[in-house]
Amino acid sequence: MRRAIILALLVATTSLAQEYTKDGAMALPKNYREWVFLSSGIGMTYASTAGGNPNFENLFVNPAAYQEFMKTGAWPDKTVLILEVRRSDTKVSINKDGRVQTEVAAIEAHVKDSARGGWAFYGFGKSDIAKLIPKTADCYSCHQQSGAVDTTFVQFYPTLIEAAKKKGTYKETER
Amino acid sequence: MRRAIILALLVATTSLAQEYTKDGAMALPKNYREWVFLSSGIGMTYASTAGGNPNFENLFVNPAAYQEFMKTGAWPDKTVLILEVRRSDTKVSINKDGRVQTEVAAIEAHVKDSARGGWAFYGFGKSDIAKLIPKTADCYSCHQQSGAVDTTFVQFYPTLIEAAKKKGTYKETER
Repeated sequence: MRRAIILALLVATTSLAQEYTKDGAMALPKNYREWVFLSSGIGMTYASTAGGNPNFENLFVNPAAYQEFMKTGAWPDKTVLILEVRRSDTKVSINKDGRVQTEVAAIEAHVKDSARGGWAFYGFGKSDIAKLIPKTADCYSCHQQSGAVDTTFVQFYPTLIEAAKKKGTYKETER
Repeated sequence: MRRAIILALLVATTSLAQEYTKDGAMALPKNYREWVFLSSGIGMTYASTAGGNPNFENLFVNPAAYQEFMKTGAWPDKTVLILEVRRSDTKVSINKDGRVQTEVAAIEAHVKDSARGGWAFYGFGKSDIAKLIPKTADCYSCHQQSGAVDTTFVQFYPTLIEAAKKKGTYKETER
């Protein structure tokens, strides 16, 4: 019974993960903050950083895709990865060092959809709707070349690395 | 129907969030990485840091408690917050600056359970089982004094701050 409930929820979640407007723009999944968290980084070189105040990046994936990846080491069709970029701050409340996350700076999506030509990037900024980033953009070639699994940066998501290595889908990207 | 499924799943999740051994030790929730992510910080002063390699802290909460907090600004009984401390590294794969998360350094739980005297801390380290941290420990008095909502550090979890402020449960802790 519990399995049936979880499966039903996963189906419901999947059907909500990708919504497009008539002209092909993508709608930001409303509940992505309730999806599975993969990891966060800070001040990584591919994110913009405002003078000495490095951004955090949080990575979320729709739960159905996560479950499938943990089983197979591969992303199923309809996978949606959400990159949430947040500003950071240091002396907040009782915290005296290090950095904590504050407001959203921008959101991007990386989406696998065979009905739309495979993987695609969408840049939301602070909007709820995003147009496709043209497939000539650098993000496509960089992810193609340096993504550890199927053009995604699994090398930065500790819980996925192990699953991918077990299934033989992990490509080393160390230099 | 979808609401019924979600409610059923939430009940199932809640019932799994807290499991204790006969002598009162707590079992680490096996699926906490699929819970709702609240935020992460890096190098915050209340976490131990190994020489120049600051740790990340990821905060997760069981989904039923999250849903309730977003509605009411308050934590229900049986809330479980999991603090996952991870080491960090910098020059990983194509990343040339900033820091990414690597292996787990330690796990702690902060648990609300009226059947066990209210909020309690459990220090798992790298184990799956943790004894209660004695209620005379500093973590209790610090959270009591400086927690923005009900002894929890909501001041560090951006998506919760707004909900708490709307419901009037937020206590300012800026100094």
